[in-house]
Amino acid sequence: MSRQVEDLLTPALCIDVDRVERNLTRMQAYCSQHGLALRPHVKTHKLPSLARRQLALGAVGITCQKLGEAEVMADAGCADILVSYEVVGERNLGRLAALARRVRISTVADSRAVADGLAGMAARSGVTIPVLIDGDTGYHRTGVPTPAEAVALAQYISQCAGLRLAGLFTYPTLRATGPWLAEALAGLRRAGLEAGIVSSGGTPGALSTHEVQGITELRVGTYIYNDRTMVRRGAATPDDCALTVLATVISANAPDRVILDAGSKALTSDLVGGDPALGHGEVVAYPGAAIQRLYEEHAVVDLTACARVPRVGDRVSLVPNHACAAVNLYDEVALVRGTEVLEVLPVAARGRSR
Amino acid sequence: MSRQVEDLLTPALCIDVDRVERNLTRMQAYCSQHGLALRPHVKTHKLPSLARRQLALGAVGITCQKLGEAEVMADAGCADILVSYEVVGERNLGRLAALARRVRISTVADSRAVADGLAGMAARSGVTIPVLIDGDTGYHRTGVPTPAEAVALAQYISQCAGLRLAGLFTYPTLRATGPWLAEALAGLRRAGLEAGIVSSGGTPGALSTHEVQGITELRVGTYIYNDRTMVRRGAATPDDCALTVLATVISANAPDRVILDAGSKALTSDLVGGDPALGHGEVVAYPGAAIQRLYEEHAVVDLTACARVPRVGDRVSLVPNHACAAVNLYDEVALVRGTEVLEVLPVAARGRSR
Repeated sequence: MSRQVEDLLTPALCIDVDRVERNLTRMQAYCSQHGLALRPHVKTHKLPSLARRQLALGAVGITCQKLGEAEVMADAGCADILVSYEVVGERNLGRLAALARRVRISTVADSRAVADGLAGMAARSGVTIPVLIDGDTGYHRTGVPTPAEAVALAQYISQCAGLRLAGLFTYPTLRATGPWLAEALAGLRRAGLEAGIVSSGGTPGALSTHEVQGITELRVGTYIYNDRTMVRRGAATPDDCALTVLATVISANAPDRVILDAGSKALTSDLVGGDPALGHGEVVAYPGAAIQRLYEEHAVVDLTACARVPRVGDRVSLVPNHACAAVNLYDEVALVRGTEVLEVLPVAARGRSR
Repeated sequence: MSRQVEDLLTPALCIDVDRVERNLTRMQAYCSQHGLALRPHVKTHKLPSLARRQLALGAVGITCQKLGEAEVMADAGCADILVSYEVVGERNLGRLAALARRVRISTVADSRAVADGLAGMAARSGVTIPVLIDGDTGYHRTGVPTPAEAVALAQYISQCAGLRLAGLFTYPTLRATGPWLAEALAGLRRAGLEAGIVSSGGTPGALSTHEVQGITELRVGTYIYNDRTMVRRGAATPDDCALTVLATVISANAPDRVILDAGSKALTSDLVGGDPALGHGEVVAYPGAAIQRLYEEHAVVDLTACARVPRVGDRVSLVPNHACAAVNLYDEVALVRGTEVLEVLPVAARGRSR
């Protein structure tokens, strides 16, 4: 007999494989229609098999945030990996060089300090690293602050032996991103430099990427699973949410409140838009239920607005606020179709934050 | 040559072994002085070696939140384990029975539904399970709501073959806890029942436990490491914080802002007292630095109030808001003395939320 969802110990991370396939296909179709290269971010799923599926559907390569993720994905046969993160420190540069010897590796830089590290490594290792200039187009995280500085850094990098200027990079696509990129691209042209790739990302605005002139590549992660934040932002419907946490009611001593065995160690404490009033997850089959408080291993669910209430031992499915963060808590994930567990996979790149 | 902290890849979870020893010794001395049994909660460290150290210093046993933690600790030789969690479901009851056959296991119940599950398992397995009545003395999580219901459940359990009434259990120790417990204890006496153990917990109020009449056992977890929340609540000083996350500056493109390679996947999104204005961690050597925003793999640090600023490649130590949650993100932890790494240990019970 096949394994059933009801046999899983809780809390369990469950993936609806049909919704995943639909989400993947839809994004690939969008990119193909608009001539955008799709380079999915694996930080969301951290699963080699889903990375391979993304590539099979037409992705040009994958994006990894950290070297540890890239190492797992290279081991799994992914041949074209963008490390979308400033690589700093001798040991990390050595890891990047080792990766560059076996797969096509590109990365980003937002300072001469980072570029110098990459160039030194490339010289020592005899590899050539394609580098995208990371530009801060309004998010105020990493990135050079202005188009002029992007051009200056591009000029610097184009003169570093062992580095190859590969284009421009930003995250996410904001209102200011288009003008910022246009100015940087004009500056590069004036300097006689070419931005082969202009890469931007983020699931919420993904389907408007073609409206921003200049962008050639889309990096998205969350779209594969979606979550409560994506629904709230209008980037997905509840039916697009492919990832749920299965939980069990362990206590029901108040008429309008139950306690689940899934807390912040099963869902994370990530909020929707930073607003605690929006709660800690969606209780799928109980409209109106609100996960009011999370402790490490408990969720307190308010059922005041619910037509029916679950009892001790009942199971409920929860859509997390933030899929990418929730995944990172689990050693394994169940691939599910209906009530059947098709496969249980190790989350191979879980915890690979280094 | 010995391994040095500077050789660690970041983000790295580091434990100051001397601070741990001081924190452990202090809490054991407090309990010994006041005749309290100490039953440390291993959910904070999830490390067999530290559980064994707690036992060697005088703890009567350990507390585990989840069965998965208890299985790891039983494998590691811990012989007396309280599973401080309502065990629900046939597979979990089977796991509890398996544990009860090899170590001294006790657990809690806050409903007849939970008690019936335990009793059925005990009858089938031929084991006897000591059960503490979980009472809600004001926290409104699990627990029977009133002392009268505690007495009624105690009477019920005392008549279940295979279960042994072991006492009362609550969390945390609040203002109302003392009167609640006194009333429940009086009710038990009138019913001719004995509460051998009266167990309460929580690091913030731990050192006032002796002021609450009736409590015989203290369950604490966070005291071993402490964190920013404990400092804020006055339960620890900065010097008592034994756990830090080592991070690297990867970007410094604004005069008063740097970006670290440690985000919510390295620190969690847990806040101090639910207040986002208190930031996402303490930057140890940079007084005034504020971790304003966290992304999955980035921290944005505001340095406006700092006398000096770190540069790209510099490393900083961070005290997390919540030690127990941060630990659960890491596959391994470095035991550190000064600049030396004494040992790198697997976080054996990481992710054991089932």
